[in-house]
Amino acid sequence: MTILSGLRLTECAAFIAGPFATMSLAALGAEVIRIDPLEGGLDYHRWPVTAAGRSLYWAGLNKGKKSVSIDLRAPEGRELAQAIITAPGEDAGLFITNFPATGWLDFEKLKALRGDLIMANILGNRDGSTALDYTVNCAVGFPAVTGTPGDPKPTNHVLPAWDLLCGMTAATGLLAAERHRRKHGVGQLLKIALSDIALAVVGDLGFIAEVQINGDARERHGNHIFGAFGHDFETRDGRRIMVAAVSLGQWKTLCKATGIGEAVTALERAQGLDMSREGDRFAARDALAQLLTPWFVARTLAEAAASLDAEKACWGLYQSFSQLVNEDPRCSSASGLFAPVDHPGIGATLTPRSPIDFTACEPLPPGVGPHLGQHTDEVLLNVLKLSSGQVAALHDKGIVGGSVRA
Amino acid sequence: MTILSGLRLTECAAFIAGPFATMSLAALGAEVIRIDPLEGGLDYHRWPVTAAGRSLYWAGLNKGKKSVSIDLRAPEGRELAQAIITAPGEDAGLFITNFPATGWLDFEKLKALRGDLIMANILGNRDGSTALDYTVNCAVGFPAVTGTPGDPKPTNHVLPAWDLLCGMTAATGLLAAERHRRKHGVGQLLKIALSDIALAVVGDLGFIAEVQINGDARERHGNHIFGAFGHDFETRDGRRIMVAAVSLGQWKTLCKATGIGEAVTALERAQGLDMSREGDRFAARDALAQLLTPWFVARTLAEAAASLDAEKACWGLYQSFSQLVNEDPRCSSASGLFAPVDHPGIGATLTPRSPIDFTACEPLPPGVGPHLGQHTDEVLLNVLKLSSGQVAALHDKGIVGGSVRA
Repeated sequence: MTILSGLRLTECAAFIAGPFATMSLAALGAEVIRIDPLEGGLDYHRWPVTAAGRSLYWAGLNKGKKSVSIDLRAPEGRELAQAIITAPGEDAGLFITNFPATGWLDFEKLKALRGDLIMANILGNRDGSTALDYTVNCAVGFPAVTGTPGDPKPTNHVLPAWDLLCGMTAATGLLAAERHRRKHGVGQLLKIALSDIALAVVGDLGFIAEVQINGDARERHGNHIFGAFGHDFETRDGRRIMVAAVSLGQWKTLCKATGIGEAVTALERAQGLDMSREGDRFAARDALAQLLTPWFVARTLAEAAASLDAEKACWGLYQSFSQLVNEDPRCSSASGLFAPVDHPGIGATLTPRSPIDFTACEPLPPGVGPHLGQHTDEVLLNVLKLSSGQVAALHDKGIVGGSVRA
Repeated sequence: MTILSGLRLTECAAFIAGPFATMSLAALGAEVIRIDPLEGGLDYHRWPVTAAGRSLYWAGLNKGKKSVSIDLRAPEGRELAQAIITAPGEDAGLFITNFPATGWLDFEKLKALRGDLIMANILGNRDGSTALDYTVNCAVGFPAVTGTPGDPKPTNHVLPAWDLLCGMTAATGLLAAERHRRKHGVGQLLKIALSDIALAVVGDLGFIAEVQINGDARERHGNHIFGAFGHDFETRDGRRIMVAAVSLGQWKTLCKATGIGEAVTALERAQGLDMSREGDRFAARDALAQLLTPWFVARTLAEAAASLDAEKACWGLYQSFSQLVNEDPRCSSASGLFAPVDHPGIGATLTPRSPIDFTACEPLPPGVGPHLGQHTDEVLLNVLKLSSGQVAALHDKGIVGGSVRA
């Protein structure tokens, strides 16, 4: 038994937030049915793609799901999708979409088919207008403080952090609503706006209070960690290391490993600072980085790593994606997180399972990225209890797709 | 009634992941008890701080929680903390920590006090070694592809994205485990490593497959959106706009709003590309950006915004944190997400509630950042059912703190 065995969710979504939410729940054992149009959703060809045009992104974000393809322009196709979304079952009747919740996806219409439906609608902005990770991130301030100090241009970060956090927030919200339904018997509509996810975090982390209470806003500090000490250093063999001394313990181990203790004491006296205070470490960040630079320049990565590890200092190695995949043991089958999985039409890739270990439940192996429509027949037969004749008729009429190819 | 009314969690954690997990659940109505040492936890002074040294970060990440302070070096204090963590109640007995789960925080020891305890242990790495957001992020590849193309140095992003995602993943895991306990009567230990969160995402988004299947890794593309079209542009009045054309619909609205349709057709003919394909838009990104630049340079922000909005093109405005707070209506009390909240010792700041709207439940107003130990007495009296005499004795012995100041 896996932790979410028995739970069933349906998804009509594209790109990251919605698909990531359900992929994460599928990795915990939930049955997730993703419904797409016959030609695939908006994200079906999203880059990166293989030489043959298969989307590696789509495979990754939909692994472990059941893929159903339906002609969603046809009224009969829409009714079929509505029937899957609202199919009976104590542990079913959960639905997520990032499409406008209007027309055949209107909550009240779906609720008429299943009174206790739980539906999560992911929006761009709270008012229903469009927003993407890129257009939210620029607005909430982070590109202005990312990158080289003095550069007047904003630096976008590449990780779609808001989409991912929005998806996982939706997963939390769906489980909270399912708990509420079990206790009180009622379903409901959840609304989650991508921009609200980012705005809330800006508040949670103190950036808004910094403007309102302190009267100033965060500046651009390059690769320095704000409010403590942390920076990147190049080693003799041209590798780069990020060291972090946020807590006092981390600061002490860094000083011990690199032997800068006496120089730090001299610096403290000269500048009237106390480096046991994180704020003072931040104030002296450039001087501290200068103290540490010769130590790293004089050592290879292996030498620096050995000394840092001997004192349990906190550091990380900068790696490209290739180096991560080819050189980091955490990114391998040996780690326990990954296994090689053969994704049809793509090939074998190192694929992650859920990053949560539940000690009382079996871990589910990493999921397979399905063919578009691979599970159409299975879902029509098992969830909607259609006969094989009815399923064949839907194929003949072109209302459903997939499965035949699978 | 709020969505998580009645649920009770205890937290012994610091910094972002653990505190963010429980703060998010507190915002949904769960009772969250954060236990700290008498002098405050490792993050009690984390920057940004007020002129008087109060941490805006701590207030933000602990708002809506009950703060209990205990001498956690004293055996009697540890027993008290264990009693709070394992206190009875059908909806209680959930615990989160990012400290080593050894000694008095050993799962088996706690389980002996409450057989169905659910405990989430957030780790740095799966093997228990230390890792922070900064030391994970450098290793998983993103700094190598963030920032100006051609720059050989890595660019750290400023958002602690992995911490936040780890926290929300823990929240999802806790609710999944609580569901399992309700169904099957058993608790369990959850383990979640920060580096696994990042490694799994690198797999989910196709970066690992890109290396293994395509034999190459992502390059640095500056502020271009990978695999489609999106870039930043400066307006006549010196503002910056991020435009995104990921879907075909977004591309069409962008062309219409800016009138580049004919030039795009000419470019397609000249280069043998079809800009209705997202990959071709990416291939022609520099030429497309050049086509668009004069349009933005010729317009003020207001003029560009009016034209883009008229066609419902997808765009966002770059803002500093100050501009966000002072100029963006989404970051105001009018939005529905925020309200001004007076945090004791800090003052009134615009504070977010949960970004999830549950239509069947009341929203909880934004929480207040507590004084350290503000709720010590309340928790001892109500959760542990101690007498006021017993509580007074604990204060006299210096085993507990707070409350008196509150």
